[in-house]
Amino acid sequence: MNCILLFESDLLPGTRTARLSSRRFEHVRGVQRVTVGDTLTVGLVNDRLGTGTVTVIGDTHIDLDIMLDRAPPEPLPLTLIVALPRPKSLRKVIHAATTLGIKRIYIIESWRVEKSYWQSPFLGEKRLREFMLLGLEQCVDTVLPSVQTRRRFKPFVEDEIPGIVQGASAFVAHPRSSEPCPRSTTGPVVLAIGPEAGFIPYEIEAFETRGFRSVTLGDRVLRVEEALPALVGRLF
Amino acid sequence: MNCILLFESDLLPGTRTARLSSRRFEHVRGVQRVTVGDTLTVGLVNDRLGTGTVTVIGDTHIDLDIMLDRAPPEPLPLTLIVALPRPKSLRKVIHAATTLGIKRIYIIESWRVEKSYWQSPFLGEKRLREFMLLGLEQCVDTVLPSVQTRRRFKPFVEDEIPGIVQGASAFVAHPRSSEPCPRSTTGPVVLAIGPEAGFIPYEIEAFETRGFRSVTLGDRVLRVEEALPALVGRLF
Repeated sequence: MNCILLFESDLLPGTRTARLSSRRFEHVRGVQRVTVGDTLTVGLVNDRLGTGTVTVIGDTHIDLDIMLDRAPPEPLPLTLIVALPRPKSLRKVIHAATTLGIKRIYIIESWRVEKSYWQSPFLGEKRLREFMLLGLEQCVDTVLPSVQTRRRFKPFVEDEIPGIVQGASAFVAHPRSSEPCPRSTTGPVVLAIGPEAGFIPYEIEAFETRGFRSVTLGDRVLRVEEALPALVGRLF
Repeated sequence: MNCILLFESDLLPGTRTARLSSRRFEHVRGVQRVTVGDTLTVGLVNDRLGTGTVTVIGDTHIDLDIMLDRAPPEPLPLTLIVALPRPKSLRKVIHAATTLGIKRIYIIESWRVEKSYWQSPFLGEKRLREFMLLGLEQCVDTVLPSVQTRRRFKPFVEDEIPGIVQGASAFVAHPRSSEPCPRSTTGPVVLAIGPEAGFIPYEIEAFETRGFRSVTLGDRVLRVEEALPALVGRLF
């Protein structure tokens, strides 16, 4: 937890005091072992970053005098489209995307997505939000990404992709592509990552028809949560 | 499991037959649901890749007629030096390093490494090997990385680093560096990654004195297992 995320509901009305209990309280007291007077990095969700000075350490809560004086880091100008990975991988992908600064994520259907994955509790709004909050605490940011799911490939590609790619460079990561992923693009990027076995030819064609270039990082097959940072490292 | 890894002990003497049991057998039968005549990607550890044609499916084993006809992918010319991360992270870092094609890994002590991490069973030779084998199965490679641990920072840096960096570009990832990580280097690279809170100034200086450049991926604090692919994506 490199940053304590605060919610409006943590703020005591009419004061500069934030009161933390449960997980954040336990962490600050037990792991960070703070004492009165210590200052911590804090951020108000979807708002500014700053510092919190510990004023009270109680048995069930801790009070911080907060000053929010700086903007969160710039978002990464990348829209991520990712075929639904297996649940364990989904959690890591959402965390990695959040820490990398990605703010728009579409989780989509693809032929090779195991249908049962759509039943995963990890896709619930609350769990997704939890993974994103952990990512924001990790990378010291406050702005929650928007995550949307699309359970039908064709209408998503036909009706939404044209709007999403407008004004952006669009790439689809495809292990069997012959074009290496380009380096240091400028401007906004849309990046589509398939299931581990890759999108099927029909899907690749559907992306290519709409302006995507198929690119590869090489022969090695990476897990989605490993491929995503590698692609971002390459592209930006 | 994108590749079935075989060991010398799987080969029936004097034949081209490999016999799989336990985990690999369960996976091939239960997950991949193969039938007789199917061909699978196989690789002999530290040897060649090829195909295995299913000849027998028994109750406790499966036989493959194997042909090893191609070299494993080129290694990534990168030596990784990483401060011991927390155990869960260590597993992911070893997996990611393996899938990225890294073949030489030093896990080292650093001031900010939690001392208890050195007691983790994940540091045992057998567990490390298991994480690497999973990585090789993932990325379709056969060559096991060499992993070495160094529990004392100073002798490692003073006695070993000069030999390790010879003829290579050397970088130490440091969140507070002002120099962005360079793109697409040529030739071999040595990359040092600190604990999440970073190496301490004395350690950074020890690296810099020996030819390392401190570089950063930006303001965001990434987990080690997320930073590693991002740095590799950037550097190669």
